[in-house]
Amino acid sequence: MAKVRVGVAGYGVIGQRLADGVALQKDMELVGIADVAPTLSVRALREKGMPYALYCAAEDKRADLEKAGIPVSGSLEDLVRSVDVMLDATNAGVGAKNKELYAKFGKKGIFQGGEKNSVADVFFHGYANYEKGIGAQFLKLTSCNTTGLIRAVDCLDRAVGVEKVAITIIRRVADPGDYHRGLTNALQIDQAPSHQALDLMTIMPHIDATGILVHTPVTHGHIITVVASTKKDVSVENAIEFFSAHPRIRVVSIAEGFLGNASFFRYARDLGNPRGDMYEIGLWKDSIVKSGKDLMFAINIPQESVTIPETMDGIRACMGMQKDRIEGTNKTNEYLGIGKWKDLA
Amino acid sequence: MAKVRVGVAGYGVIGQRLADGVALQKDMELVGIADVAPTLSVRALREKGMPYALYCAAEDKRADLEKAGIPVSGSLEDLVRSVDVMLDATNAGVGAKNKELYAKFGKKGIFQGGEKNSVADVFFHGYANYEKGIGAQFLKLTSCNTTGLIRAVDCLDRAVGVEKVAITIIRRVADPGDYHRGLTNALQIDQAPSHQALDLMTIMPHIDATGILVHTPVTHGHIITVVASTKKDVSVENAIEFFSAHPRIRVVSIAEGFLGNASFFRYARDLGNPRGDMYEIGLWKDSIVKSGKDLMFAINIPQESVTIPETMDGIRACMGMQKDRIEGTNKTNEYLGIGKWKDLA
Amino acid sequence: MAKVRVGVAGYGVIGQRLADGVALQKDMELVGIADVAPTLSVRALREKGMPYALYCAAEDKRADLEKAGIPVSGSLEDLVRSVDVMLDATNAGVGAKNKELYAKFGKKGIFQGGEKNSVADVFFHGYANYEKGIGAQFLKLTSCNTTGLIRAVDCLDRAVGVEKVAITIIRRVADPGDYHRGLTNALQIDQAPSHQALDLMTIMPHIDATGILVHTPVTHGHIITVVASTKKDVSVENAIEFFSAHPRIRVVSIAEGFLGNASFFRYARDLGNPRGDMYEIGLWKDSIVKSGKDLMFAINIPQESVTIPETMDGIRACMGMQKDRIEGTNKTNEYLGIGKWKDLA
Amino acid sequence: MAKVRVGVAGYGVIGQRLADGVALQKDMELVGIADVAPTLSVRALREKGMPYALYCAAEDKRADLEKAGIPVSGSLEDLVRSVDVMLDATNAGVGAKNKELYAKFGKKGIFQGGEKNSVADVFFHGYANYEKGIGAQFLKLTSCNTTGLIRAVDCLDRAVGVEKVAITIIRRVADPGDYHRGLTNALQIDQAPSHQALDLMTIMPHIDATGILVHTPVTHGHIITVVASTKKDVSVENAIEFFSAHPRIRVVSIAEGFLGNASFFRYARDLGNPRGDMYEIGLWKDSIVKSGKDLMFAINIPQESVTIPETMDGIRACMGMQKDRIEGTNKTNEYLGIGKWKDLA
Repeated sequence: MAKVRVGVAGYGVIGQRLADGVALQKDMELVGIADVAPTLSVRALREKGMPYALYCAAEDKRADLEKAGIPVSGSLEDLVRSVDVMLDATNAGVGAKNKELYAKFGKKGIFQGGEKNSVADVFFHGYANYEKGIGAQFLKLTSCNTTGLIRAVDCLDRAVGVEKVAITIIRRVADPGDYHRGLTNALQIDQAPSHQALDLMTIMPHIDATGILVHTPVTHGHIITVVASTKKDVSVENAIEFFSAHPRIRVVSIAEGFLGNASFFRYARDLGNPRGDMYEIGLWKDSIVKSGKDLMFAINIPQESVTIPETMDGIRACMGMQKDRIEGTNKTNEYLGIGKWKDLA
Repeated sequence: MAKVRVGVAGYGVIGQRLADGVALQKDMELVGIADVAPTLSVRALREKGMPYALYCAAEDKRADLEKAGIPVSGSLEDLVRSVDVMLDATNAGVGAKNKELYAKFGKKGIFQGGEKNSVADVFFHGYANYEKGIGAQFLKLTSCNTTGLIRAVDCLDRAVGVEKVAITIIRRVADPGDYHRGLTNALQIDQAPSHQALDLMTIMPHIDATGILVHTPVTHGHIITVVASTKKDVSVENAIEFFSAHPRIRVVSIAEGFLGNASFFRYARDLGNPRGDMYEIGLWKDSIVKSGKDLMFAINIPQESVTIPETMDGIRACMGMQKDRIEGTNKTNEYLGIGKWKDLA
Repeated sequence: MAKVRVGVAGYGVIGQRLADGVALQKDMELVGIADVAPTLSVRALREKGMPYALYCAAEDKRADLEKAGIPVSGSLEDLVRSVDVMLDATNAGVGAKNKELYAKFGKKGIFQGGEKNSVADVFFHGYANYEKGIGAQFLKLTSCNTTGLIRAVDCLDRAVGVEKVAITIIRRVADPGDYHRGLTNALQIDQAPSHQALDLMTIMPHIDATGILVHTPVTHGHIITVVASTKKDVSVENAIEFFSAHPRIRVVSIAEGFLGNASFFRYARDLGNPRGDMYEIGLWKDSIVKSGKDLMFAINIPQESVTIPETMDGIRACMGMQKDRIEGTNKTNEYLGIGKWKDLA
Repeated sequence: MAKVRVGVAGYGVIGQRLADGVALQKDMELVGIADVAPTLSVRALREKGMPYALYCAAEDKRADLEKAGIPVSGSLEDLVRSVDVMLDATNAGVGAKNKELYAKFGKKGIFQGGEKNSVADVFFHGYANYEKGIGAQFLKLTSCNTTGLIRAVDCLDRAVGVEKVAITIIRRVADPGDYHRGLTNALQIDQAPSHQALDLMTIMPHIDATGILVHTPVTHGHIITVVASTKKDVSVENAIEFFSAHPRIRVVSIAEGFLGNASFFRYARDLGNPRGDMYEIGLWKDSIVKSGKDLMFAINIPQESVTIPETMDGIRACMGMQKDRIEGTNKTNEYLGIGKWKDLA
């Protein structure tokens, strides 16, 4: 079977990881990436010898790229013509504009969480609503926090049924390498309910969700606490069992050395993962407690990489590569090396 | 009536504020404070002209104090002999030892949250269990987080009844001026349930409480989110009304400029409050949401000063100055200037 | 003699402190302050009972202020008409526009460091070039870093002559209470030479200055290291002596407890200084070393309050209240309570 | 020629990178690593399938390792017997004890900067005093800051002669993944002169060095500013030329996107370097300025990885693999892939 041809627009924090993720899928071909400026990430691509072809997404910026010694393989339109599906990881708002180009050439498009929901036909999560994405032209992925949150809530929901969740998002305010952003010695609160709770309800309309988000001055991973009202009563032990069986959840403990969000980054670096990335969310055994009949627990979201697997799932769904949720996500997991570590436990 | 004579052991972050708080109570007399070293706080006391007499709590350290130009008025024993009640704000563990001295001279003692519960006869909160403290010889105050949390939960409980709370504590990891402490670009999680949830249940045994605590690298104020299951259904509007009526809760909004924990500190500094302190907890209107029948909201705890009013309440209770919860806390509020701002609203 | 009538435009971080500073000068009268919005600082002014009259600097914003319960005493023009001199602490760029109003009514104006130098006739520092400010209509103060730096360099220059300085500014990136600013887990470098070095040369043209500035994610006080080439050789002991004699420099040591920038803030809070402010810069004895014949040392700049005394000096100079540098700065020091602490040493 | 057999004691931040570095040297063989506990790093080694054999450095801890599923290949003594040279990256103080074991078996040992200088025969830097290390039994490497600093100073010294340096070290206070360390919203100053200046003089006794160190709450890379008095006058352009020719210095600019210390980490992650590490120090073109005849500039030190190349140099020197500074360091550079990027410029 011919490989599905994929392009990536926007080679920033997410775009780079999407490109790397596609390159690992044996049934896909990364045709190239598009960007507009000689950013550090593009300069790094050059220093690596241009493993991915670069297309220039704005003709008037092409000279800047070439002046910086970056070889340019064509325009964004050239890239779009050559692919089956575009992954759009451009800045919020640009994707909506790019969509017109994708539509013009009859190509599929998958947008990241920063775009408005209206950009896409389906608001998508690989585990929670894979079936809805099958054959769709335009998908929008959930944001990093929502993607990780839904993994855990969907896992619990399929095991014992979830009626209601109240979440507290302790959000990292900037990515490593960001400047001019963020907080200095301050916690900042958003108007409640948080959009992540609302987004969860869009994907899982049978659950009542609300939540409060607090920004914190760190760069490595959000922590979310979840108070979940389940249909069937669930013990802490059973919850550990359910979560541990999920390929994209790592159940860890403080005793092992996972003291906080920075431990996951440290561990992923020590594993030799490119960029120190981790595709799985973390879930602390030590955090799981009962609140009456409800279950409370805390998860860790690696914001830079968590949406990559679900985006690969999205390609599989919209291109009809696998027609089944488990088949599709398993294929993604296989190629990304997700879950192999579970054999060790 | 003779003023109640009060001494303070330990002139650190809390001890200084206790001394200032006592000095404002017109029916109390601050006899003096005790410490062992020429810390910055003790040096500042000297630069201010020794408004409080200093007693040396370790005879072999007296020379250090005098060498630094700090006049010493006597020993800790001298101070204890001269007072009716000692407020103990020494480092964790020292209070248990000091208690022997207080007991030897038949004096009352009030310990801060760092000591073990067993140090005292009563684990005390001015609003939640004032009556239990009346006439007791030894009280222990709840810690800063628990003190602020109980204010809000007790307020709600008295209005509509609270059956269960699940809290997420987003804890500031160090105080302003601390070094050698804390976190750098990391969120750290504690074994759940957090001690604050357990402590709440000790004070309010009719409530089922659990919670997760996450440390964050900031210095100005904890934020706690609370998911409360109430006996009677309560609307957001009613909740605002109940909380707004509490003298030690400031109901604020993002629109007013209270964007996060740092805003309270900024506001208190601009108010001209000594040290930029605030006695009230903050509660964001914008954070109050319904989670099914439950109520969810977020509060801000000014960790350096929040326990001062409840400690004044403790003096009133254990010395029998007021026999009633409302009378006692109102008198504290009057002398500390708490709640006057409500007349403006 | 009639008191000099002073107004303050912009009631933010600096403007509030200017107003408080003027209110302490017995030979000045604070007529009022002007702002445009019900910020937290303006709300705090109201909660304090409006000790300063508020004028509205934008007629179309008056309703917002009144809606928030803030009494408005008139327009900015009303304020300008009623004063002898305006202190302008508005956001960068606004001062240049306000200047037209001050000029229209023939009033004097003193601008803060954010404005362009061209806004004023004289770029002013109370200790370094007081004489140039005498009788001038428009002064611009040096910025916080430059003000503190010049205090130390001018002190050394008058004692032994300074030919050259190379500075490293370790800059706090945001003020307490700021959001949406700054850095998260990053140090950021500016194009060298830093403007502070260039500004120093404008005020002290006989000195060759250069420097590098690095932003750091903290809120309480810049630290500057200075490598100074002096005309006469100076020992560490003599340098301590010179610096200790300066009214606006506190010579401190690590042993006393001044471990870093946060110690000054802690100490000022413990002193009971309003807002925990300190007017003096700190200079660490422990930092002073010889580099060959050069002298190297480190100073601490309390960025929120350091320019207040020099601005008071500026009023004295431009209004001709004192014709002499020492007389003028001494009068400011007397009213602000600067240097009294030296009697304790 | 037989490969030099190398062991690594201590598999923490530095030890892991030493092991990886040795594994890349085609003329060396990594026999194994030794540690005492199932830390995150050791657990990651297991998850990777034990590419390096693990030896247990404390017999009574062996059960802990095995309980965590970590296969143990023998004791530290077993490892020492099997190697030609041990790289000791244990916690400060342990190395001195381990040295007895290395001596007992007549093996060579190279210690990291945390140990006391007296642990070794030679205090070593690959570029500055390679010759002194030739044939020595025990070497101690300079610390991370000193290693990076000496690269730049030695480079300048060999080009134009350096007589004197005054440095300001803006130190990152913790490594990524550290907890219980560091600073929260504070800059902390050390007693001057900093040990790095003193260490530089031990390695380069012909230079007069002093400096001030300030700790900052970040995790990715120290920044050092250097004021260097050179024997021959040197222009900014010439300095750029000298620094650019050094294999272990990357000369970068703000315009390229290197805004601060976090940019190097971001860039190294984007390059796909394991752990996001970089062996080179960074040096900002934009920071280079003249201070009279002196040269001032700023460098960035990647604290986790900077000493790895110089440690490889140390193996080459003490084992007599290369007898010449340039030959030895070039061989290290070749195997670590250092300097290839210069061909792109």
